[in-house]
Amino acid sequence: MSARKRKFWGWGYEDGGPSEAECAAALAGFAERFGRPLEAAPPPRVGEIALPAPRVRPPSSLAERLSDDPEERLGHTYGKAYRDVVRALRREFPHPPDWVALPRDEAEVVAILDWCADARVVAIPYGGGSSVMGGTEARIDDLDGHYAGAVSIDLRHLDRVLEIDRTSRAARIQAGVLGPALEDQLRPEGLTLRHFPQSFEVSSLGGWIATRSGGHYATLYTHIDDFVESLRVVTPAGISESRRLPGSGAGPSHDRLFIGSEGTLGIITEAWMRLQDRPSYRGSAAVRFPGEAGFFQAAECIRRLAQAGLFPSNCRLLDPGEARASGATRELESVLLVAFESADHPVDAWTARALEVCRDAGGLLPDAAPTSREGGTGERGGAAGAWRDAFLNLPYVRDVLTRASLIVDTFETAITWDRFESFHDQVIGATRDAVKRVCGQGAVACRFTHVYPDGPAPYYTITAPGRPGGELEQWDEIKAAASDAVIAAGGTITHHHAVGRDHRPWYDQQISAPFAATLRAAKAALDPGAILNPGVLVDPR
Amino acid sequence: MSARKRKFWGWGYEDGGPSEAECAAALAGFAERFGRPLEAAPPPRVGEIALPAPRVRPPSSLAERLSDDPEERLGHTYGKAYRDVVRALRREFPHPPDWVALPRDEAEVVAILDWCADARVVAIPYGGGSSVMGGTEARIDDLDGHYAGAVSIDLRHLDRVLEIDRTSRAARIQAGVLGPALEDQLRPEGLTLRHFPQSFEVSSLGGWIATRSGGHYATLYTHIDDFVESLRVVTPAGISESRRLPGSGAGPSHDRLFIGSEGTLGIITEAWMRLQDRPSYRGSAAVRFPGEAGFFQAAECIRRLAQAGLFPSNCRLLDPGEARASGATRELESVLLVAFESADHPVDAWTARALEVCRDAGGLLPDAAPTSREGGTGERGGAAGAWRDAFLNLPYVRDVLTRASLIVDTFETAITWDRFESFHDQVIGATRDAVKRVCGQGAVACRFTHVYPDGPAPYYTITAPGRPGGELEQWDEIKAAASDAVIAAGGTITHHHAVGRDHRPWYDQQISAPFAATLRAAKAALDPGAILNPGVLVDPR
Repeated sequence: MSARKRKFWGWGYEDGGPSEAECAAALAGFAERFGRPLEAAPPPRVGEIALPAPRVRPPSSLAERLSDDPEERLGHTYGKAYRDVVRALRREFPHPPDWVALPRDEAEVVAILDWCADARVVAIPYGGGSSVMGGTEARIDDLDGHYAGAVSIDLRHLDRVLEIDRTSRAARIQAGVLGPALEDQLRPEGLTLRHFPQSFEVSSLGGWIATRSGGHYATLYTHIDDFVESLRVVTPAGISESRRLPGSGAGPSHDRLFIGSEGTLGIITEAWMRLQDRPSYRGSAAVRFPGEAGFFQAAECIRRLAQAGLFPSNCRLLDPGEARASGATRELESVLLVAFESADHPVDAWTARALEVCRDAGGLLPDAAPTSREGGTGERGGAAGAWRDAFLNLPYVRDVLTRASLIVDTFETAITWDRFESFHDQVIGATRDAVKRVCGQGAVACRFTHVYPDGPAPYYTITAPGRPGGELEQWDEIKAAASDAVIAAGGTITHHHAVGRDHRPWYDQQISAPFAATLRAAKAALDPGAILNPGVLVDPR
Repeated sequence: MSARKRKFWGWGYEDGGPSEAECAAALAGFAERFGRPLEAAPPPRVGEIALPAPRVRPPSSLAERLSDDPEERLGHTYGKAYRDVVRALRREFPHPPDWVALPRDEAEVVAILDWCADARVVAIPYGGGSSVMGGTEARIDDLDGHYAGAVSIDLRHLDRVLEIDRTSRAARIQAGVLGPALEDQLRPEGLTLRHFPQSFEVSSLGGWIATRSGGHYATLYTHIDDFVESLRVVTPAGISESRRLPGSGAGPSHDRLFIGSEGTLGIITEAWMRLQDRPSYRGSAAVRFPGEAGFFQAAECIRRLAQAGLFPSNCRLLDPGEARASGATRELESVLLVAFESADHPVDAWTARALEVCRDAGGLLPDAAPTSREGGTGERGGAAGAWRDAFLNLPYVRDVLTRASLIVDTFETAITWDRFESFHDQVIGATRDAVKRVCGQGAVACRFTHVYPDGPAPYYTITAPGRPGGELEQWDEIKAAASDAVIAAGGTITHHHAVGRDHRPWYDQQISAPFAATLRAAKAALDPGAILNPGVLVDPR
């Protein structure tokens, strides 16, 4: 219900993100670093782009819910990947959806999907549109004439918390609600979903579930998966709903089939989600590991933390490149951030034990006692608030850098601890080689976004000077080299960015042939016309 | 490789379970309670039972791995449900498997399954054989002549830990290993799977995974699901293996499709499992809630504990009936047991906070300080060891009571907290009514085996005097009434006993039609001949 206007060509809101001065400072920094002047090219305007007329006509009963407004169609052509922004800056929108559907309730979702099935129209579920993997893109002329057109089904009007069960700490929530509107509706009850992906501002509950989104909490409840109590999904074969249950051992999990299905099996319209009390106790500290070699030492430390059964809310590792870029240090050192939160009890015992583990692993503890405090929600203000604003602003900065022909993107994976060092060497080595080969220079840095008892989720950030007009091809070459290395070294092609269209070649290498056959079979059972998000996860037919 | 002999007709080992004196005391107690003399009828002997000749002949290449030994065939006819024991005591074995296959490695599993597929022979994966839901039973004449025969594929020789990754705390383990042999192989490394279902002695890793087994830890890691790092599954369509990953967001979870598939999609041969360090710090206390009304008060207390983010290893609630039967008290009161364990740190802060929560919720704390200690593995000796022996012995006692025509069985479910009180009233009311109607008298008691932030897993125990010769029909009537009530009141037909053949009618009511269609589709893709455990979860064709 926000009156704020979304950018149709890039991340977030037109009035969002950091100030112009901050953006200029970021550009100046990279200009100095890469030794070339950098200027942000103007973003596209709607009027600059010629759109083809819709190829299909909806029935009159749906006419009020389908829009062919050019800005809507352009805004639903891409997700928000680096390569999406580059293409938008090139004014290339060859595959806009013919219509953008804006259902007001589940019955309208059903009606729209029924029309798509009858008319062989591709149906692409759309939540916040923040996919960075081509997950919402209507590349339908790849699909040899089988389809008559494409509709992006935007759930933005399904944005309400329908029911709150304070006793069980759960709520029935419509899938189209974006992060801030969701938290606004839970706050009066003192509850929170406590799921804060970097896309929080512009991504939806349904999108989080469909893509196995990762929040910014580093241990225990990392992905959205564990918060799902039950799901309601509209499929061409009918509505599939699971019971609200705290746990069950009755057959394979219904919800786990749809979690991560990326719009290929159905449209999630509602979920009962497990909630948390809003935390009121906090403790945190930053621990330093000097030198280049400090990174693996810090990784070993974080392994011990992850295996200690303390379940920190934050347990993040920044390599020297990330640590400097984020302002966490000016030295050549890795920085380990560890934090605890609780709504129930002071976390001093937890924080103290974590710092003992860090000290025993050779980390340099802060001189001052760890930050420990009570009260407040931590959502606004303070150091945590500042960090969070910066975290949420990064994709806006990326757009500015992209406009200046910098190549700025990230990829992420997970690997078991036993293989981490060699995995990291191979992946960062292959990526740096590709950056050097393709761009001449550039940086690849690493942090851990999430850690598990059995391994970390390393997250790699690439910054390199692109060749104006050639950035897309340059990036694709770097991305392919990185993805090849991740898969060859035993990782997953994605820990939380999803598969979409962009990761598909490596996803196909990651999964077994029998499992791929079950996905195709499940899709054929639920979506016999293969209208739902074709090209994602499985071949449509 | 134990030389101990399994009972073919009932639970566990011939030399296992409590002493004769203990069994006699249990019988005497119930004789007094129900006002009738109770004597344990003699169990069946192998020679008493006539077995039909095998209906199929295996190829000579497999002959050495297939047994038609009568005791093997009888021992693989049933699982270990109450109704299985009753039928065995009646000397009724109408559906023995034609052969018991004993593969020595995965290649032999493949060869046996290939033969089954070619010859239309039912293939029933068999781990420890402790199913209490008819999950391993070859009722194939229900299946109208489609099949030529049935083989029970017993993985007992796939019993090794193949590889231990101490760094990531994980191990590659063959699926046929039983609980004690698994822990024996992990102990030298100081590791444990820490999964202790009541069937621990006689159930296998593969069985736990296939049935979504619940361990005896009450919070956080309740089911086996979360311990699975990757799986290797032999299916008629090929071997499906997932990557070892600490976490992934790449599509729907491969492993979650096979976890809970109950032998219908493939035979799990290996898994990489997440392990724990063996705990060395412990704290525990028992909190009392007087009177009948104390039960709901204690439930409210345990809800607050489950929502406090403390993650106790034990958090069990016994209603007055359970508390008295287990010897936890002689008063009319409910007893809440709460315990913490850690391999990393003393748990005093955790225990102290848990007791504060209990006190604030009106519980009567113990006079003495909570038990807190360091050292030892807690596996043998002490109060915990005694409790554990008693816990593992209960199914043996059940067999003795069953031989005396008592009806002794349990069922379990899960429900969200908001509905718990009315759910419990409906379920225990319907079950008590059925017991009274069918048996004239009897008892139904409740405990919580697991608790979640959003709800408990209540577990009901029924004890009633059966009519000699009519116990099976009596039990089926009681079980149907209880299951109808569970489903009508919104619960799950099973929290951790699985679906098998016995829960199937209610499972079909629990899941959605579209999801049932995906299960059928996945089965058709992996098992086109529908030879794998037909009748469980989905109709074979």
